[in-house]
Amino acid sequence: MDEGPGAFAGDLSPPGRLAGPGEGISPEELALAARNHGLPLEALRHDLTPLGLHYVLVHYDIPYVPDASSARWQLTVHGRVRRPLALDVAALRSFPAVTLRVTMECAGNGRALLAPRPVSQPWLVEAVGTAEWTGVPLRLLLAEAGIEPDAVEVVFSGADHGVERGVEQDYRRSLPLDVATGDDSEVLVAYRMNGGPLPPQHGHPLRLVVPGWYGMAHVKWLREIRLTDTPFTGFQQATAYRYRQEPGDPGRPVTRMAPRALMIPPGCPDFMSRIRFVRPGRVLLEGRAWSGWPPVTRVEVTTDDCRSWYDAELAPPDRSGAHLWAWQRWQSFWTATPGNHVLAARATDAAGRVQPLTQPWNRGGFGNNRIQRIPVHCGPGRPG
Amino acid sequence: MDEGPGAFAGDLSPPGRLAGPGEGISPEELALAARNHGLPLEALRHDLTPLGLHYVLVHYDIPYVPDASSARWQLTVHGRVRRPLALDVAALRSFPAVTLRVTMECAGNGRALLAPRPVSQPWLVEAVGTAEWTGVPLRLLLAEAGIEPDAVEVVFSGADHGVERGVEQDYRRSLPLDVATGDDSEVLVAYRMNGGPLPPQHGHPLRLVVPGWYGMAHVKWLREIRLTDTPFTGFQQATAYRYRQEPGDPGRPVTRMAPRALMIPPGCPDFMSRIRFVRPGRVLLEGRAWSGWPPVTRVEVTTDDCRSWYDAELAPPDRSGAHLWAWQRWQSFWTATPGNHVLAARATDAAGRVQPLTQPWNRGGFGNNRIQRIPVHCGPGRPG
Repeated sequence: MDEGPGAFAGDLSPPGRLAGPGEGISPEELALAARNHGLPLEALRHDLTPLGLHYVLVHYDIPYVPDASSARWQLTVHGRVRRPLALDVAALRSFPAVTLRVTMECAGNGRALLAPRPVSQPWLVEAVGTAEWTGVPLRLLLAEAGIEPDAVEVVFSGADHGVERGVEQDYRRSLPLDVATGDDSEVLVAYRMNGGPLPPQHGHPLRLVVPGWYGMAHVKWLREIRLTDTPFTGFQQATAYRYRQEPGDPGRPVTRMAPRALMIPPGCPDFMSRIRFVRPGRVLLEGRAWSGWPPVTRVEVTTDDCRSWYDAELAPPDRSGAHLWAWQRWQSFWTATPGNHVLAARATDAAGRVQPLTQPWNRGGFGNNRIQRIPVHCGPGRPG
Repeated sequence: MDEGPGAFAGDLSPPGRLAGPGEGISPEELALAARNHGLPLEALRHDLTPLGLHYVLVHYDIPYVPDASSARWQLTVHGRVRRPLALDVAALRSFPAVTLRVTMECAGNGRALLAPRPVSQPWLVEAVGTAEWTGVPLRLLLAEAGIEPDAVEVVFSGADHGVERGVEQDYRRSLPLDVATGDDSEVLVAYRMNGGPLPPQHGHPLRLVVPGWYGMAHVKWLREIRLTDTPFTGFQQATAYRYRQEPGDPGRPVTRMAPRALMIPPGCPDFMSRIRFVRPGRVLLEGRAWSGWPPVTRVEVTTDDCRSWYDAELAPPDRSGAHLWAWQRWQSFWTATPGNHVLAARATDAAGRVQPLTQPWNRGGFGNNRIQRIPVHCGPGRPG
């Protein structure tokens, strides 16, 4: 599948590593952080994340697809199917369209808070966003192509091209056939985001959307869908995106999003320390919570750095289905008193998963849904 | 003007500092890098930067201005004027509208490459973008208000509120009266970006646009314009955004953008090292160049790490005026040979300024237009 080792020395395409004790963020991690970006947490106020505030993670370069090229863009569906398809965007629009509101989070969210820190894109807690995606249900495309009985997986290839740990590749991921053809978490081949064309950084002109799964599954700049009779063993499936404790460990695959609540940091910030300042008195604490096993059933808040917790008011999940995979708003009130405080929230989902207070560490730095801690200074003075 | 010292200990609102030798990027710098973001350099291919790829730098929080509030948003024009004004966005639209294509760059671009490194938003070279801004020429608003003869400066206040080095403030900057009323660099009160409403992170619903100046002058979430009979001494004018070598030095104000050329890194990247891989043979080198003293008159390229330079082909400046303040495209061809190479480009502007090969250091890390160096590995193998 066009993946192969290149002749690169280790320092040109380095293996994964852990940062040493006290090692600051490296120039390479900073280069990733300057390109990719998170959601500024105050943007959690928006039900739908405005364009440019939704998190972005691109492995290689954003492919350049001017309008003339997107009109000619072809998605092929082949492999273990009876009728291979080659569809342009206009052909995809002739299928029934579905619009879903989906919260998407990078699997590496929380990585830079781990100790020891896996060296990669250094997310804190903000690699998330919510958008409305419009597209064709994947199961309709696969039905049109006719799935051969021996098919077990569906492999998706994007146009994003580069090298990773010595392997040159187009970005490529697979889904088990039951996930790809299910309609519980309806998988989409999406051609619209928030009612407009996909922006370049979100996969223009086509991307996969896999509600409930971490971002690595939502293949952008989608060009090829191939059904296979053996499990896919490409780099992004078998090497990257595994929960493993040791380098040799085969690990477990990264799939759905662990539950997480995020709070909008209250008051106003200091530019450099990002410490928050509030005035004494009643303070609205609000945020969003989500899980890949929806809905979220409980959000608790602490204002004394996890010594005590109380229940926040949580918006009910959307039972229509259109918003089932989107975050839920929560709120609570706090009477701030002068001094330093640490605020946090934690989510529990329908499957009974609770956000941990200690780090769920793994070598790749995936799925770290440890609670977000927000230091706040409450003073009687002018800030507020 | 509502700025005053707060009662904050140094570690809550720390003073400026320089990173120690070998000190990695700190958690606070990373928190800024995760919020604010640069232009992924491959997006230099677009004449107009797509939404979400234009650089963003926000000092405090992005103000939350839902549609109902933006309809009620009021811009006041007062101080040393004969007829104070209070204008909503509809009233601003009744003035003649001008659309300008403007390249905007953060004054801190290049900061994280300085040695020693000033600790602040850690930009590499990518804090830039080009947009078309539509709005009212500021000189028309000031003429409507009637400028008193003793006015010397115009002070702009945004709604972005926070604390910086112990000073609580709304973000606030001034322009000399001759700049504010000039039409050489036509200053706009802008209400549209690339033909649509301003996105939240770019100042919704109103911002100032000062073509040719670094980003700090383009006050976002603009609420107030005040004419004064004395020079403005607020934090962002007299403390921040000064070129100074020593802490006590009054420094020179940061104003227009120094000339800069950026190259689209050729070939494809390694995910982690960001090293570029190209195949041997003819390689297109292309990019953009701009200056606050336009136009750019020359772009030179080196493919041997500054040992030799040759002229690139440079698009002529736009003489109509509408694009005078936007970047110019340049290109060149390189015959890549196997091995490691360092590529760079440098711009010269109409005022004769040339990009330096050594760092123009100052304590705030402003205006570092030292050339961008791109390490490239050319191999006979598969990458390309």
